[in-house]
Amino acid sequence: MTTAEYMRVMGQHAKAASVLMAQASTQTKNAALYAMAEALHQRRVALLQANEHDIQKATASDLAPALLERLELTEAGIVAMAEGLAQVAALVDPVGQTTELHYRPSGIQVGRMRVPLGVIGIIYESRPNVTLDAASLCLKSGNAAILRGGSEAAASNQAIADCISVGLQQVNLPTSAVQVVNTTDRAAVGELITMTEYVDVIVPRGGKSLIERISREARIPVIKHLDGNCHVYLDDEADPVKAIDIAINAKTRRYGVCNAMETLLVASACADRLLPELAQNLQKFNIELRLCERAMLLLPETLGQRRQIAVEADWFTEYLAPVLAIKVVDNISAAIDHINHYGSHHTDAIVTENYSKAQAFLTQVDSSSVIVNASTGFADGFEYGLGAEIGISTDKIHARGPVGLKGLTSQKYIVLGNGQVRH
Amino acid sequence: MTTAEYMRVMGQHAKAASVLMAQASTQTKNAALYAMAEALHQRRVALLQANEHDIQKATASDLAPALLERLELTEAGIVAMAEGLAQVAALVDPVGQTTELHYRPSGIQVGRMRVPLGVIGIIYESRPNVTLDAASLCLKSGNAAILRGGSEAAASNQAIADCISVGLQQVNLPTSAVQVVNTTDRAAVGELITMTEYVDVIVPRGGKSLIERISREARIPVIKHLDGNCHVYLDDEADPVKAIDIAINAKTRRYGVCNAMETLLVASACADRLLPELAQNLQKFNIELRLCERAMLLLPETLGQRRQIAVEADWFTEYLAPVLAIKVVDNISAAIDHINHYGSHHTDAIVTENYSKAQAFLTQVDSSSVIVNASTGFADGFEYGLGAEIGISTDKIHARGPVGLKGLTSQKYIVLGNGQVRH
Repeated sequence: MTTAEYMRVMGQHAKAASVLMAQASTQTKNAALYAMAEALHQRRVALLQANEHDIQKATASDLAPALLERLELTEAGIVAMAEGLAQVAALVDPVGQTTELHYRPSGIQVGRMRVPLGVIGIIYESRPNVTLDAASLCLKSGNAAILRGGSEAAASNQAIADCISVGLQQVNLPTSAVQVVNTTDRAAVGELITMTEYVDVIVPRGGKSLIERISREARIPVIKHLDGNCHVYLDDEADPVKAIDIAINAKTRRYGVCNAMETLLVASACADRLLPELAQNLQKFNIELRLCERAMLLLPETLGQRRQIAVEADWFTEYLAPVLAIKVVDNISAAIDHINHYGSHHTDAIVTENYSKAQAFLTQVDSSSVIVNASTGFADGFEYGLGAEIGISTDKIHARGPVGLKGLTSQKYIVLGNGQVRH
Repeated sequence: MTTAEYMRVMGQHAKAASVLMAQASTQTKNAALYAMAEALHQRRVALLQANEHDIQKATASDLAPALLERLELTEAGIVAMAEGLAQVAALVDPVGQTTELHYRPSGIQVGRMRVPLGVIGIIYESRPNVTLDAASLCLKSGNAAILRGGSEAAASNQAIADCISVGLQQVNLPTSAVQVVNTTDRAAVGELITMTEYVDVIVPRGGKSLIERISREARIPVIKHLDGNCHVYLDDEADPVKAIDIAINAKTRRYGVCNAMETLLVASACADRLLPELAQNLQKFNIELRLCERAMLLLPETLGQRRQIAVEADWFTEYLAPVLAIKVVDNISAAIDHINHYGSHHTDAIVTENYSKAQAFLTQVDSSSVIVNASTGFADGFEYGLGAEIGISTDKIHARGPVGLKGLTSQKYIVLGNGQVRH
C-alpha cells in the first residue's frame, strides 16, 4: 500500500467513525476519556520505554536540546496528561447546544444547533502530549481525528495511541475515531491536507514554516496561527503602576510563548516618566532592548544593558526571546496604526484610564484578542474559560483567538414546524 | 496596466477603505444606503439605457432566454432594488455587538466582539440586482467589497456602481469601499481569488461550475454552496395532511431554487396510504416522476403521467425542474442514511408526529438546515429572520446555511482588566 492509499483508507475510516462520534452521548465520551486516563496509568512503563527509545534515537541524531525537552515524557508528565483528560471530561459538551430558537411570523421556530465538524486533521511537531490533548478535544466535541505528530516522537505517539484505542474500545466507540498516522513518510501530510472528501478541517500546530507550508498546500480549511507579534501601548493617561506591571509581565512571564509582548509602544507625553523606570525593571530580567531614536534619547545608557537602535525589521519581529522593541509614538492613533501595520493580529493591549481611548483601541485594533489594562499573557484558552485550547487562531474566518471545543463545532439551522408550507 | 496590476490596485484601495468602513457608525452606513436608493431613483433613465445596451448585445449574441430575463432591469425592478436598500438599512448592525462578557477568576472580564471580516470579493453571474444586494450587505456589515459580475451585465453594473459611488460620497465614506471590476478579462477573477494580502473572503454566486472552479483555485476562504439536493422524508407516524401539504409545497413552490425538494422518501409502512394521493396531486402540476421499484408498484399507471424507474444517478441529482425522485425506505434510519449519503447537506425535512424520531432526524441529518414538519422552502435568509442573505453556505466552517450580515463578520476576543498581570 502506498502512503497515499494508506492515508485514504484512514480517511474513509475516520469519516465513518465521525458519524458515530457525532451521535455519542456526553456520558459515553466522558467515559472514554476516563478509560484513556486509566490506560495511561496501566501502561505507563511501556509508555516511558517507548519514549526512551525516541529520546535515544533523537540524541543520537543530535536533536536540539529544546526539542529534546519537548519530546521527553516523565512519570509526572503522564500524570499531568491523565489529569488533562479529566479536565476535558469536565467541560460542558458543546454538541447539541441549541440557541436563538425563536418563532417567525410564518409560525415556524428557527434556531441553531451546534454539531461537530466531522473529521479533524492535526499536524504537530514532536511533543507526545499533544497527541493526547488533541485527541481528547476532538473526541469531546464529537469529531473523529487523524493525528500526525513529528517523526522523532513516533514510538511515544504509538504508545499513546494504544491507550486511546483501549479507552475507545472500553466504551464501544470506534477505535478509528482517533487514528495516529504510523508512517514517517512526509507524503502522508500532503495527502492528509488534500483529502477534501474525508477531512473537514486541518489544525497545524508548530513552527511558522510548517504552518505556512500547510496553509499554502492545503485544499481543506486550516485553523492556524502564524505569528504572535504582540504589543502593549502605554497611554499618557495610563495609571503608571498598572503600566509598569503590565509591561513587565507581558514581556517577562515567559519568552517563548505566542502571547508575549514583543514591541512596547509608549505615548510621547509620558515616555520620559515611564521609560526610565521600565528600563530599570527590564534590566533586572536582562532584557535586550531595540529602541526607536526617541526612546534612545530618553534612556541614558545604563551599565551593562544591551541595547541598540531598532531597524524596520524589528517592528515585524516575534523575538520569542528576552528582547524587546520599544517605540515612542505621538498618540493612540499612531499606536493603533503601528499595531495594525506591523502586528500579527494576535493579541494587543492598551493601558489607559481614559474611557474613550479604551473604546477606540477595542474597536480599531484588528487582532484576535484586544485587551484593556491587563497583560497580553491572558490570551489563552484556560484564562478565557474555554477549559483547553486546540490552538490560537489569527484567522478571521470561523474561529478567532483561542480555539476551544466550540471552535471544533459548527452551527446548523434547525426548523421546528407544525405543518407549515411557504407561500 | 495589466489586469493583474489593475486588480491589485483595487485590492490595495479596498484594504485601505476597509479600515474606515470598520469604524463607520451605523448612522453613516444607513445614510449611505438611503443616498444610494435616491441615486438609483435620480439616475433611473441612465440605468435603463445602460441595461438596454447590455440586453441588445446579449440578444445579438444569442444569450439564452432565461439568462436574458435575469439580465433585464425594469422600472419596477429599480424600485425594488431601492426598497431592498431600505430593508438593509433597517437591519440591526452586527458590528460591535459584544456577547458573553463575563468575569474570570483572575478578575479580567472576557467577551467577544463582532467585527467586519475586512474585504469581501463577490463573483456572480449576469444579474445586475446582485451588484446592489451584495454591496449593501457588505457595507452594512462594515466591510469593503470588490464585485465582479458577469460580462453580459457590464454596462448595467457600471451604472449601478455609479449610484453606489454617489451614495458613499454623500456621507463621506470612501468610494473604494465598493468597487465594481470594470474589465471583462477573465484573469481578473483569477487575481481576485488569490490576492490573500488584500481579500479576506470570497463569495461566489452562480452556477455549480463557476463555484467549483473558484473553490478549486482560490487561495482565500470561500463561502459557497454547491448543490441543493433537498429531501423530504414522510414518516409512517406523519400526519397525512401535513405530509401531503409539505411534500407538494416543497416540490412545486418554485422549481429552480436550491431549497426545492428533489427526492421524496416515504416510509414503507405508510407508502401505500400516501403515495397514490401524492402522485395524483403532483400530476396536477405535471411533475415527472423517477420511482424506485417499490414506489412503482404502489402507483398504478395514471393517464399521461410521465414516470420511469429511477437510476442511481437520480438520487444524486438536483433537477431544478418539475421532476421528482421518490424512494420507499424501510424506516427513519434508512431515510437518514440515504440523505447523508446522496444529499448535498443543504436542507432536509422530516414529517412525523413522533417526538423521538423528530429528535433523531434533527441531530443525525448532517445538513445546513434540518426541518421538522415544515416545507424545505423555508430555508432562506428572509424566512429565518436574517433580513437578507448574501447566499446559502453548505460548508461547515465559519457560516452554515443562509448567510446574512453576521456571516460577513467574525468575533474577536476582548479583555477588560484593571491592571491584572498573569502569574
